[in-house]
This record gives sequence, structure tokens and C-alpha cells, in this order.
Amino acid sequence: MRLSTLRHACRNLPTPSVHQPRTGVRVFGLAKRSLPLGHSSNSQLLLRAASSISGTTSAEKAPKLGKQTDGPGYENTIRENVQRTKEEMVALQRGHPALKPTLAIIQADEDDRLLEINKKMAGKIGLNIIQICLPRECTEDEIIEEVLKLNEDPRVHGVYLHLPPTSLTSRVLNTLRPEKDVDGVSDLNVGRLVRGDMSQGFTPPLANAVMELLARHDTPMEGRTVLVVGGEGPLGVALQCLMQRRGMVVLNSRRSSEGLQKQVMQANAVVLLAAGHMDVPPTWLRSGTAVIHCGSALMTDHGMEMSGVGPLTAALRMQNVVQSSSRWAQGQQYRPWTLRSLKLQPLSPVPSDIEISRAQTPKPVDQLAQEIGLLQEETEAYGRTKAKVRLSLLDRLREQPDGKYVLVAGITPTPLGEGKSTVVIGLVQALSAHLKLNSFACLRQPSQGPTFGVKGGAAGGGYAQVIPMEEFNLHLTGDIHAITAANNLVAAAIDARMLHEATQKDKALYSRLVPSVNGVRRFSPIQIARLRRLGISEIDPSALTPQEVSSFVRLDLDPAKVTWQRVVDTNDRFLRKITVGQASTEKGHVRETQFDIAVASEIMAILALADGLGDMKTRLERMVVGSSRSGQPVTAEDLGVSGALAVLMKDAIKPTLMQTLEGSPVFVHAGPFANIAHGNSSVLADKLALKLVGEDGFVVTEAGFGADIGMEKFFNIKCRASGLRPNVVVLVATVRALKMHGGGPNVSAGSPLPRDYIDENLSLVAKGCSSNLRKQIQIAHLFGVPVVVALNVFKTDTQAEIDLVCQMAKESGALDAVPCHHWARGGRGSVELAQAVKQAGSQPSHFQFLYSQETPIVEKIRMIAQKVYGADDIELSPEAQAKIDYYNQQGYGKLPICMAKTHLSLSHLPEKKGTPTGFTLPIRDIRASIGAGFIYPLVGTMSTMPGLPTRPCFYDIDLDPVTEEITGLF
Amino acid sequence: MRLSTLRHACRNLPTPSVHQPRTGVRVFGLAKRSLPLGHSSNSQLLLRAASSISGTTSAEKAPKLGKQTDGPGYENTIRENVQRTKEEMVALQRGHPALKPTLAIIQADEDDRLLEINKKMAGKIGLNIIQICLPRECTEDEIIEEVLKLNEDPRVHGVYLHLPPTSLTSRVLNTLRPEKDVDGVSDLNVGRLVRGDMSQGFTPPLANAVMELLARHDTPMEGRTVLVVGGEGPLGVALQCLMQRRGMVVLNSRRSSEGLQKQVMQANAVVLLAAGHMDVPPTWLRSGTAVIHCGSALMTDHGMEMSGVGPLTAALRMQNVVQSSSRWAQGQQYRPWTLRSLKLQPLSPVPSDIEISRAQTPKPVDQLAQEIGLLQEETEAYGRTKAKVRLSLLDRLREQPDGKYVLVAGITPTPLGEGKSTVVIGLVQALSAHLKLNSFACLRQPSQGPTFGVKGGAAGGGYAQVIPMEEFNLHLTGDIHAITAANNLVAAAIDARMLHEATQKDKALYSRLVPSVNGVRRFSPIQIARLRRLGISEIDPSALTPQEVSSFVRLDLDPAKVTWQRVVDTNDRFLRKITVGQASTEKGHVRETQFDIAVASEIMAILALADGLGDMKTRLERMVVGSSRSGQPVTAEDLGVSGALAVLMKDAIKPTLMQTLEGSPVFVHAGPFANIAHGNSSVLADKLALKLVGEDGFVVTEAGFGADIGMEKFFNIKCRASGLRPNVVVLVATVRALKMHGGGPNVSAGSPLPRDYIDENLSLVAKGCSSNLRKQIQIAHLFGVPVVVALNVFKTDTQAEIDLVCQMAKESGALDAVPCHHWARGGRGSVELAQAVKQAGSQPSHFQFLYSQETPIVEKIRMIAQKVYGADDIELSPEAQAKIDYYNQQGYGKLPICMAKTHLSLSHLPEKKGTPTGFTLPIRDIRASIGAGFIYPLVGTMSTMPGLPTRPCFYDIDLDPVTEEITGLF
Repeated sequence: MRLSTLRHACRNLPTPSVHQPRTGVRVFGLAKRSLPLGHSSNSQLLLRAASSISGTTSAEKAPKLGKQTDGPGYENTIRENVQRTKEEMVALQRGHPALKPTLAIIQADEDDRLLEINKKMAGKIGLNIIQICLPRECTEDEIIEEVLKLNEDPRVHGVYLHLPPTSLTSRVLNTLRPEKDVDGVSDLNVGRLVRGDMSQGFTPPLANAVMELLARHDTPMEGRTVLVVGGEGPLGVALQCLMQRRGMVVLNSRRSSEGLQKQVMQANAVVLLAAGHMDVPPTWLRSGTAVIHCGSALMTDHGMEMSGVGPLTAALRMQNVVQSSSRWAQGQQYRPWTLRSLKLQPLSPVPSDIEISRAQTPKPVDQLAQEIGLLQEETEAYGRTKAKVRLSLLDRLREQPDGKYVLVAGITPTPLGEGKSTVVIGLVQALSAHLKLNSFACLRQPSQGPTFGVKGGAAGGGYAQVIPMEEFNLHLTGDIHAITAANNLVAAAIDARMLHEATQKDKALYSRLVPSVNGVRRFSPIQIARLRRLGISEIDPSALTPQEVSSFVRLDLDPAKVTWQRVVDTNDRFLRKITVGQASTEKGHVRETQFDIAVASEIMAILALADGLGDMKTRLERMVVGSSRSGQPVTAEDLGVSGALAVLMKDAIKPTLMQTLEGSPVFVHAGPFANIAHGNSSVLADKLALKLVGEDGFVVTEAGFGADIGMEKFFNIKCRASGLRPNVVVLVATVRALKMHGGGPNVSAGSPLPRDYIDENLSLVAKGCSSNLRKQIQIAHLFGVPVVVALNVFKTDTQAEIDLVCQMAKESGALDAVPCHHWARGGRGSVELAQAVKQAGSQPSHFQFLYSQETPIVEKIRMIAQKVYGADDIELSPEAQAKIDYYNQQGYGKLPICMAKTHLSLSHLPEKKGTPTGFTLPIRDIRASIGAGFIYPLVGTMSTMPGLPTRPCFYDIDLDPVTEEITGLF
Repeated sequence: MRLSTLRHACRNLPTPSVHQPRTGVRVFGLAKRSLPLGHSSNSQLLLRAASSISGTTSAEKAPKLGKQTDGPGYENTIRENVQRTKEEMVALQRGHPALKPTLAIIQADEDDRLLEINKKMAGKIGLNIIQICLPRECTEDEIIEEVLKLNEDPRVHGVYLHLPPTSLTSRVLNTLRPEKDVDGVSDLNVGRLVRGDMSQGFTPPLANAVMELLARHDTPMEGRTVLVVGGEGPLGVALQCLMQRRGMVVLNSRRSSEGLQKQVMQANAVVLLAAGHMDVPPTWLRSGTAVIHCGSALMTDHGMEMSGVGPLTAALRMQNVVQSSSRWAQGQQYRPWTLRSLKLQPLSPVPSDIEISRAQTPKPVDQLAQEIGLLQEETEAYGRTKAKVRLSLLDRLREQPDGKYVLVAGITPTPLGEGKSTVVIGLVQALSAHLKLNSFACLRQPSQGPTFGVKGGAAGGGYAQVIPMEEFNLHLTGDIHAITAANNLVAAAIDARMLHEATQKDKALYSRLVPSVNGVRRFSPIQIARLRRLGISEIDPSALTPQEVSSFVRLDLDPAKVTWQRVVDTNDRFLRKITVGQASTEKGHVRETQFDIAVASEIMAILALADGLGDMKTRLERMVVGSSRSGQPVTAEDLGVSGALAVLMKDAIKPTLMQTLEGSPVFVHAGPFANIAHGNSSVLADKLALKLVGEDGFVVTEAGFGADIGMEKFFNIKCRASGLRPNVVVLVATVRALKMHGGGPNVSAGSPLPRDYIDENLSLVAKGCSSNLRKQIQIAHLFGVPVVVALNVFKTDTQAEIDLVCQMAKESGALDAVPCHHWARGGRGSVELAQAVKQAGSQPSHFQFLYSQETPIVEKIRMIAQKVYGADDIELSPEAQAKIDYYNQQGYGKLPICMAKTHLSLSHLPEKKGTPTGFTLPIRDIRASIGAGFIYPLVGTMSTMPGLPTRPCFYDIDLDPVTEEITGLF
């Protein structure tokens, strides 16, 4: 809008009736008949002279030099350059039909001839021109402001500062982004030209024009002498570098130099670079000497047709704009990575996680972003080590094929966890830093509750970590806080609405909900959406019938059927069941309810499943918060709050970029609570990463819990939502967990490990392999995906145990099975795994869902229970059956199923290890997250609020106020 | 640590027994006896030749040229340069005793002679050298990694890349930060030299050395011809620019050039720049021609003492390092601002706040930071428009005098608010964009609760706003979220601890609180702090007596005396009174409690009052959360949670930089709830801003509520904590509020304004001025600070009303009184106010506290009630009296007082407008925020949790998922 306004402003300027010549670095032309030099001489030079530069006269060649400068030869030079640039334009636009190469011209004062030439030339080539007209006396600040706007404007590919020399200060020249500096005037571009690396800069168009003219001479100029007069400035230096690179011998002279005549007589060509009036007496010139005048001489010939270097320079400026546009377009393409790995020198014994993290200096995140092909405008830094990545990337890399999609899942774990996150990180470290393959880890953002409770952080551990681990484990970029704010706004809206409905009549409610503002009553868009759902097409508030008013104003929420809970990101067990509304201001509308941990919010599940801002907003709107007394679902949109939720979540939807200890990229995004949701990181992070790694790259992500839960949900829920298809499953096993499944004693956090887990016991290992490990491999095969088993090696594992696991895993159908040592050795310790994954990724994957969404709810549950868990059948409680009927009636029957089952057994009984059989899976109740888009049957009681033990982690966590170092995080 | 390790590594390298000569851009020397040129000739040149450059021989001058290159004259040149650099060092270190100018050398392979020369030279001058030794076959990535570390290392002022030419790729050269590129090899520095702006770059030391040698010739070289052989590279170009700038005529020749002999014979000096063997036959030289050889010829003379340009180049490199250090030191000093204002073109009628905000393009925040003199390492960007500013700034600008400190307060407001925030912003816009004075606004971060409730945002309004307003009003940089997390961690710890104490015996508690980890039992530091407070000096866990164990493990919190509340940043009225712990897992330990709005947390008050990380941590530790059954206060440190709180708050302590609509800087930081805390933004933001604006600049901040509350607390609490002294009070009045105080009818949000407020009514205005306005001016005078009254003009105000207010305000003692129109016109509308404030700032301020901290609590309260509010006396409830006794007994008697009183009247009765008299102030109860450091008497009931109305703001708030534009925020 701004630009078109300005363009309009330019149009409104009076057309200058008299052309005002000016001197200045922007003003140049070729003298046709007279070359005034200095101010003393009036002698004239006819530039029809010589034959060839070599000095050997040739009648035929004689006119060509003349033509170069004002005859048809010169016209040809322009025409050929214009033609070439036009062809480049056509080629460019064929590849990028939406691209409109655009030159912005900042001019002070009125239009002039040079500008006209440039505009005409742009027109010929088909370039777009934007003119910014500043007043004659504009300040440096005003120019800077315009330059900055053009810097940021993605539609502008080049900027031509058509300003008086006094305005072209260092500050102005160097504010202009070098990649838009098509005149090559900034310090950086001048330096690039001098150093000779022109992969990024631009050659000044005037210098190019002179070189073009010299190149058109009959005899090659290589080895010949060129005299440059007045070349002290950067333009002269640039020109000289170009000439020297073409093998010319350059003589320099100042305009006032004493020996000028001698020098002119030596030269095969003379370039008059300085502005102002110059004369070269014809008698000084050797036969065949070319004279190119770049000063402003021509500009005094007002009224005459423009010729000389002006048009050629303009043509070459346009060529630079086309080149700039082409680079921009290329920059928009997928870019191969130039990932710089961070050296890792693992210590033994392995120090604490925070010590390892602190000992490594992460790359600045903007540098990491650049290395993996992100554009500057696609990232938003949050401090030095974290950046949000904009979703526009998906659009930019639309055509780019996805990389391989690797899921890390686990066998049924012990309560201590088997290290899936460290496997993900170690694998990505190995793939990128050691196998030099593009690869990306996609991880969940951990809740802060457990960080301060028992479990600690979730950034991996040992030499397989995301760094800085404290940034990962604490607020990160505030996504969970945003979810908390959004979730609790819904909760506050629910209770407040119930109170207001209970204490006001329809009319009062209506006049408050649709108030008269400056005499006008109007429904807000969100209210119109509710009217639509109620089947009311009227949008004039005064035209609703009393019954319509009543159905509009009354959500009539049944307090006993409110399913929405408040959340905090703190392990606060006393909020598991509470009574609210006990203050007198709430007039006795007390209600029993609860707080969940923030990551259990449906909004977190939505964040994880949304595939764009629009999709997220739609899901937020359709979240069901409870039902009315008449049994109708009430949504966030009914409460009028969904727009505000989208606003609160607008930044959270962008994944956060971090890095591993070895400098490989990591997306941290979303972390839905695996107990009641699907427990996978976000669809968007995976999609972005798959585009960024490119066709031969790998994206490694993780499914919470054992494969029977996390992987099953990853496939049936997340892949269904995203449309992405996994290529490899990495199944993480530990000797410890295998022994437990083989019949070893119970294991619990905080107690010492029984001897069976410390000493070699091949029999327990073998039993574990043939039960749980085999079953989990079979589950992955149900979905048609090849499996690599990763044995996460602990120092107590013996070689015989390791070999046995690998052998039995392969016998059970795994494509490969390898031990990995990332915890102690970083990526180097996972190279074998990386190679196995690379190999498996080249196999065809025949992915298929376990069930179609059309299958009835009960059948879906039964299929999961029987095929995945190995149950004989399921048993529905009456509540569960009633809910299913209700969901079917409401049209939710096609949603996928998200089982809420213990992760400690394939069955619903945590103590049943190995491969339990002969059990019936009881479905206690069923709930639904309509916004997120799944139905979750409850198998047993799932806690949604962890507690604090007697001595939580926080006893050891501290901050040194001087060094700002954190201790005690793990 | 890294550097010293590397230095150590260098030391351990074997000393090279045979020096390996190398060719390369880093290798140069001056030929003493032989100048081999090309590879064909063996002819020798004795450089004792000529007399003077002019060609007129002179026996006396003859030896000087010789001396320049290998005689005592040359030695003198070196000595003089070393001497000059040493003097610069001394001067530099006098001003900056802690500064250690340091050159880092990255070398591949072993040490060599050149390195020795450089190290020796550094030693002579007193420079510090750091050597990074890379293996001979190091990769580009390894070099880049070292360069990046040196870039970030504030102890390193220059980097010398002593690497083979093949390693000096564009990527390596341009990774080096230009301000540390003391060899001037990066594209940017080359371009700077060519363009001639050397305020930032560095001249390559070798080019400088050649210039030094030429300058030492007997005859000035200006106008003379210098032949540069082999000057095609950037070094040659640089040299040529320098020569031309000194008026020399430069001839260029390539080593193989045919005409070389002719050129040599023309030249007054010959510079052999190319590496490799070169010969200039003596017969080619004119008498008096100087020859300077910068190639590697000398390097073959191993074993001989080094001379030639090598040592001089090394000396000049050190000079560049000293220059770089000096620039660094200067960069550490206060820097004058180069603030670029954003143009504002106010529309009429004034559009909505979000539309105005969106129409303006904010400056990138890193640019704003640079403009106001922040160093790059002092900011942490959060997206494009917000950045946290590090507190290290305070240390850096320790010596810098503070600017003027301006407080914006208000008369007793109507419930609609009188626009103090917009006055702050408008004033700063006027001061910076129009009066061109450095100025900074310091504002509170608003709670998100009201943003979605009734009140809307707090970024100002109309054409006086902080932009982008949605960023200001939403999550900002997460500080309030951090406070919420910290506050609720304390709450969770309290309830969990009470449960664990209630369900465990001493021994079990003790063994859990001080567990055996790998066989060792140890107290954590935070537990040792508790032991100290209990008077237990034993730190061996096994040595405590059972009684000591008991007093250690039992906080014995009395559930009825827990004063800590949970918080949410949502207007959630149903949480005003709740019962927690009703789940069976909490075993019946139910308790009645409440949630407050997050900004009411004591942690917010601490954030606002802390003056550093250490101070914040101490305050967090001493927060009292309740008392034990025996009446002892229980602190956050007793709970073991204060270290974790400091960790959660480590980023929140850094103020957030944003900007106004006109591009002036704004700090947004802290926003303690004015109802129960002091309602001012942070001490740290003010301190940072006062340093940044400099002595003649202005920092404008705001006190919540009317001056009787906000200003009184600002002076007695905030200024007492910070030690800062205010210079000016701006008292904001509106005709509307004055009419109310003059007897106009009641005003309430949501209802139409009565006619009295719309039509002219001079009598009501006059009564309002002579009552409330006069009284508030007098209150400011109590503290000895000059007052400027700012009349915030509404469009219904008549000129007569405006004039009357200004006249009466001055009669009441205001130094000045002016109308302001910032809402409709931006900074331009507040220029008059800015001038008045500037004038008032030049007056002496005789600031004094109202009471000494030694005054007893009751007396402090009485002084505020009588002198500020105009009460006859105070009346303490028995609860209040008991609390005072308890606080005195606990040693809290010296804390300042933070009155919790209605802001709608000078008295405790909101309906009493004007200047109420004849009332006794009832003190219902007294509470204490021991961490924040104040005692707050409750005068009436103060709500700490706002509610949602029937139609909250969120009905209009929406996000367009395509444009990402937000609507409905105000």
C-alpha cells in the first residue's frame, strides 16, 4: 500500500519542463563531439578517428570504434545487452511465474533524464520500477528510513540511489542491503569486487559498461594500455580491477596531472571517469585510441537524444536487477546444507548433563538457520540459541521432496525409562556429524512440572543432548505458557458464563452480549458463527425472535457436564480435585473441578496435530468444553473465545529451532501428555524438517511410551492427520528392560537395582527378547514399516548380552539390530545405528493404517486391543457404551482412537511384563478431544497431574548470580 | 579455559629445528642483497644505490634510502613506530586499566619466523598474544569454528590468520568479524579502504609498511611515480588507493609484463608486491629509485637475523591491534545516540489502536538497540520487535552520569482512567522525535487478564503507543509467565510439604530429604542455609541430634497461616476462593485458599524492586510463605525452592526493549499489582534507561493510580530501594476527572457519560482544580519535587476549560501546566509538555522521603494517612495491631509501608471525591511482603482477582490465519 501510494505521489509530481543537468556520481554520458577536459581548453575531438587499438590502421575497421560510442555499433551493443537481459528475464520468469523483478529508485527532487533512460530501459526489459520520491532537502534519516523499508520489502530486488553525491553518505550506502545494492556501491560489494569473489556482489553498471565498450574493440585489449583519468574513487578502483583481470595494463591519471599528455599518447584507450567538463585535445591521441567519457558532458546537451554510456549503463543496471532477482529466486529454492559440526571430546567418566551442556559452545542460532537453508526472514530469534521458524517455509519449499521419516519407539519400558530421546539425539548426531547426511531431530517440549519434580529434564543426556539444556528444559520460547493462558481463558469463560446466565434474564444477557456501540448493535463474527450453528440466518440483532434470542444467549452449560479443566505447568497434586466459586461474589455457584498439568490440555494436542494457522484455529473453535442441559455440545466458539485463543497461540504454532551437542538441528515443538493424548511432537515440525533435510536427508522423531502406545498413536493419529508416511521404525531396547520382561524382579525409581540387572544373565535377556521385543517388532510390521532395533547400551551390559539381543532381534524380524553408545560417546557411538537406519531407509515401506476411520468406534478399539495389545477382547463399561452412543449421535464416530492405557505393560495391568495373553481389556470410560480430533478410551485411571515427592529436584537447582550458571538440572 | 588449553597445546609442539620457507600472502620480507625476479635471472641488485627520489643526487642523502631498508634508518622507522604504539598503549591502559589488548593468531602447522617476529613485536609493545595451533591439514570448518570463538571472545581485539593461502577462503576471511580483522583482509574492510571511510576498518599492515617506507624518503613522493609490480590482488589495490590518496602516480605492472623494464626506468620507486622470486636488474633503475620488496625472498635466508618489511609490518599490525582495542574501549563508553524517528502522519478521525499500530513499521529492534548505544552482546532478540537487555550494561556504563528522572502521576482518577500511560508515551515521543533529546519510556508489563477482560491493553492509545501493541499486550517476552511458574512452584511445594510432613515420621522425612546417593549423604547448599538459620552448625547429616533432625525436617507450617496464594494471569473470578486437596491421594488434607491474578504475586513486586540477580535471589529466599504452628516465619528458602525460583526468573530480570510509534525506545518491565503492591515498573529498567539516555536525557516512568498512592509509593518504596532521585513530577489531569471532583455525577465504565462531562462547565472544573488537583500538587511538594501539570485534552474539552485548568494549576504551585494532544497527534501534540518538562528538569529537585525507615510502623502509616490523604487519624483493627506486634517482633519494623487503598478517592471511601477531610482511616488488617520488602496495610477490601463480564473483550479479538493480522485488541 505504501509503495503504491508513493508511486502515485510520483505520478502527481509535475513533469519537469526543463531538464536540469547535474554533476554527481550518478550522472554520466559519453561525449559525442566534444570532450571538454579541465576548464581551459575548447579544442574538439571527433571520435571517428582511429582504426584499431593496435595502431595498425584498417579502413574497414575504422568506423567500428565510432559506432561503439554513437553509431549503430554502439546501438548494437545496447541492443544485444538488452536482448540478453530480456532472455534472462524470460528464463527466470518461466521458472518463477509469480516473480516480478523490481528495481526501486530512491530519488530526491524531480524526475530527470537519467531516470527516464532507466525507466525506459526497465520497460524494454520488462522490469518493474518503483519510484520513491523524496523532497529535495530530505535528511539522511529520511533516506535511511526508505532504504530500510526497501531492504525489508521482499518484492524489491534492487535499489538505485538516484541522489545527489552529498546524500550518498557511508551510512546511506551501507544501510542498503548488499544483496539489493545493484549499483555495487556499498563497502561490502566494493570489497567483493576487489577481492574478486563475485558470487554475491554486483559490478557497478558503469564499470560494466566501460568494459563492454572496451571488449567490443576490433582488437583484443589484453596486454594493451588503458589510461583511466579521474579514477581515484571506488568506481575507478573497480574498473581497474576489472581491466587488470582482463589483462589490460592500467595507467592512472588525475585530471590535473602534469604528465597527462604523455600518458594519453601512450594509451590504447582512454577512459575519462571524473564528472565535469573535460577536454582531450585530438592531437594527443594516437591513431586508434578509443576515448570513453563517463562524465556529465552529455548532460549539457539537453534537448538532444540521449546516447553514450547512459543507456548502456542503464541496461547493465537492469541486468544486475535481473541477476539479483535470479539470486533471490535461487535463494528461495532448496539450498544444500553447509552444516558445521561441533567437535565433541567425550570425557570419562561422563560428567553431569548440565556440565556437558555448558562445556559446549552452541553455534549462534541464526548461523545454524543459515546452514540448513533457512532464509533470514523465516526465523525469529529468541535469545542466542533458540529461534522460532515461520511456517511460510512450507510454502516456499512446496516442490521440494521430503526426506526419510524415522520414528524412534521403544519396547515396553521399565519405570526408569529406556532412553528413547537420547537415541533420537545420538542418531541425528551420528547421521549429520559423522555420516554427513542432512538430518533433523524433532522432539517434544517437556513440561516444567517434572523438571522440578522427580523426572528432571528431557533434553537427552550424556553426550547426546540438546543444548543449552537449561533453555530446552525451562520456558523455551513460551509455547506451554501460551497453552496455559489459552486453556485457562476458556475455563474462566466457562464459569463466568454459567454465572452470568444464572443471574441474568435473556433480555439482559442479550443486551450485554450484543450491546449498542455508538448507537449501533451488531453481532461480532464469532457470534454470527454461533447463529449459523443454531440455524439462525438473521444477522440483524433487532430481528431475532425471543426464542432465537434465548437460544443464542443461553449456552445452558450443565455444570456437571463441563469437561474442560484448568491447567498449570507445575506438579501441584493439591489441585487434582478442588472446589471453585466459594467467594461470595460468585453467589454460591460452587463446582467441583480439577487442574491438569498444562501439557494435558487439549490445546497442546491441537498444537501437535495442526498443520497450519487456519487448521489450528478451526480445531480451537470446535473444541467441546461440555454439554448443555439438553445434551448439546458447547464449543469454544460458542463461548466467543476461540479468536482470542488463536491470538494467544499465534507464536506457539512456530516450531523452535535448537541444536544438539554436535551442532545438528533440532525442532522442539509441542508435547501432548502421553497419558491421555497421543504423546508425539508436532506435525508442523516434522513437515518443516522433512522439507529442510531434502530428499536424501533424515528426520528422526520420537513416540512416547512403548511402541504399543506411542507408535500406534503416531501411525493411526499423527500420520493420519499429517498425511506423512514413515520409512523406518527404530525400536529402542535395553538389556535392563529385556531382563524385566524375561522375568526379572520389579524395578522402581529411587531404589537400588537388583543384582539381576547388574550381572550377566543371558537367560533373562533371551526370554525378554522372545516376548516383549518380538511382539513390539511384530506391531511395527502390522503397519508395514521396517524395523531397526537400537540396543541402548549401559555400562553393566556384557558383550554376550549385547550380541544375544542383536541376534534375537534380527531373528524376530528386525531388518537390523545394533548396540549404541551415544550417551558415553556422542554421535560417534551411534554411527552403526545411523548406518543401519540409512540402509533401512532405502527399503520400501508399505505403510498402512490399522483401521479405517469409517470403522465404528467399538471396532476400532477392539482392533487395537486385539492386534496390538494381544487382548482376547474388550469390555465396555455402561458409561463407556453411553458415551460411544452419544459420540456417534454427535457425528464424532469417524475420529481415530487415542488409548489411555498404562505404558508399563502391553496389557492394562502394569505388572504384566513380557507378552501378556488371555486378558480382556476393560474400557472404563471414554472421552473425546473434538478439537484435537480423537476419542480417548480410558483403560484404568490415568493421572493428569503429577505430584511433588518429599525431596523434589529443586533442592539441588540453583543459579550463581555472578556467573549466571545453573546447577542441579539434569 | 579453552584458550589457555590451546596455548598450552602450542607450547607442547616441538620447536621446529629447520625453518620451512613458504610462499603465501602472509609471507613477506625485504630483499637485502638479492632480488630474484621470475625464475630465469640470477642478476643481483645492491640496494645502497640512489640518492633521493627526485633524481638530483646528494651524497648526504644517499645512505638514508639504504638505511630505510636495512640500515639504522630503517631500524629507526621500526623503533619510532614501536614507540608510538607503546605510547598509545600506555594512554589506552591509563584510561582502561583492566584492558589487555590482545591479538589472537590462528596458525596451521608449526611456528615459524614470521610468527616469532610478531610475537617479539607484541612483547615489545606489551600486547597479549593468544596462539591457536591447528593441525597442518585442518579443514575450513575447523578454522571457521576457531574464528567464530574468537569473534565472540571479548578478550580478543584482533585476529591474525597466519594460514596457508589455500585456507584463506572467502568464507574464512568473511567469517572474521570486521572489527577484529586487523589485517584488513575481509571484503568489508577492503571495501572500506577503497571507499576511503576508515572510521571502522583497518589498513593492511603490509600496505601501511610500504607507505611508511615511502614516506621516509628524503623527497616527498607526492606527484612522483611509483611502480607496483604484482599488485593485482586486494593488497595491491589497497596500496594503490593509499598511494593515490597521497598524490602519487601509480603504475601497475605484472611480473611478466613485457614493458617492465621501461616502467621500472620511469619510476621513482618500485614496490615488488608479489610473492616468489624476483629480480630487478640494477641497470634498469634510475639513480635514486627506491625498491621495496615485499615478497618472500628473505624467507629463504633462514638462520639469518630477520629484517625488512617483516618487522615493520608486525609493528604496524600491533598498531592496528591497539587501534582495535582502543575502538573496543571506546565502544564500551557511553555512545551518543543516533536515533532515527519514525514519521507519523496522524489521521482524523483517529483509527483504532491496533490499526494505528499496524500501519506503522517498527524499526528492527537490533537497529534501535544500536541507535541508543547498546552493544550487540547486550541484547537478546525475541522476534523482530522485542529484545531483552542484559544487566551487564550497568557495569559497563558505571561511570556515566544518569539522565533526568521524570515521574508521571495523576490526580485521583475516574473509573475510566485519565491516560497516564499515553502521557508517558506522548511525552517521550515529543522529547525524542521533536525536541531531539535522548529519552526513554519505562512502562509496566500489563497483565493478560484485563486484555481479554474489560480494560483492554496498556500500550497507550491513539498516536501515543508502544508498537507492535499486540506484542506488548500479549506474552511479551514471557516475564509474567515466568512469575506464574515460580509462584506456583512455591505453592505446590507448600502443600506437598505439609502433606509429606503430616504422613511421615522424622526419620523417614530425614532419609528422604537427605538421601544417600551412591553411598554418600550430603546436605544441599540450600539445606545448609536452613541449618544455619536454625542455629545448627553441623553439616554432617549423620551427626545431627534427633531434636536437630526434627527441627530441620519439620517446617510445621500451620495450614491456617499459609499466606502464599497460587496465581493465574487470567481474570478467573471462580478462583477467588477455592478448596484444594480434595482428591483421595491427598488423604483429606483439604484447605481453603485462593488464586490471585499473576501480577499480584510477591515475585512480581520483587522483580520490580530488585537491583540485580543477586539481590533478586536474596529477596526470593526471604519470601515468607506462612508461619509455623509455633509462630516462626517459613521462607521460600526453608522450602528448598528459592534456587529453582531464581533459575525460573533468570531471563525475566532483563528488561524488554520496544519502541513507540515514533521510534523512541521503551523499556517494558514488571507490573506489580497496584491494589496490594507498589504499582511501579522496575528499578532495573529505570537504572538502565538513565544510563543510556546520558546526562542530558530523560527517563519517563509512570506510577499507577492517583499520585496519593502511586507517587507516594514510588517515592517511599521504589526510590528508597533504588537510590534514584526524581527530578520532575508530571501530574496528569483531565477535565472529566476535575469535573467529577468538582461535584459532577458518578461515572462508570460501560455507561454513557452524563452531559456535564460533555458540555462546558467551568464551575465544576474550577472546583475540581481547587480541590483534588491542588491537593495532589501539594503532595508532590511534600517530597520536594517540582510539578508540571499535563492536561490530557479530550475532544469535548473547550478552550476556556483548558485555559482555566492551566491557570489554576499554576496558581496551585505547579511550575507549569500545559494541555497535551498526543492521543490525536502523537509527539507533536506533546511538544509543549516536553518543553515544560525540560525546563522543570533544569530546576533543582530537593527530594526527601516522607518518613525514615526507623519510624515505627504505626507512625509511618499515620504519617501517610495524615500528610498525604488528609485523614484526621488512623484506626487499627485488633488484627492489624496484632500483626504489627508480630512484625516488630520478627524484625520487619523497618520496612516501608505500601498502602492498599482505593484509588478512587484520597480517602478510603471511593465515593468521596475532591479533597475529603474529617475522616479516620481504618486499617482493617496488615500483611507483609518480606521478600519484596514492604508491609501493606489493608484499608478496605482489595480485590486480587478481576472477573470477566458478560461480554469480555475476547468476543472481538480474532486472528486472520492468512494475513496473521489481529483484530479487536485495544
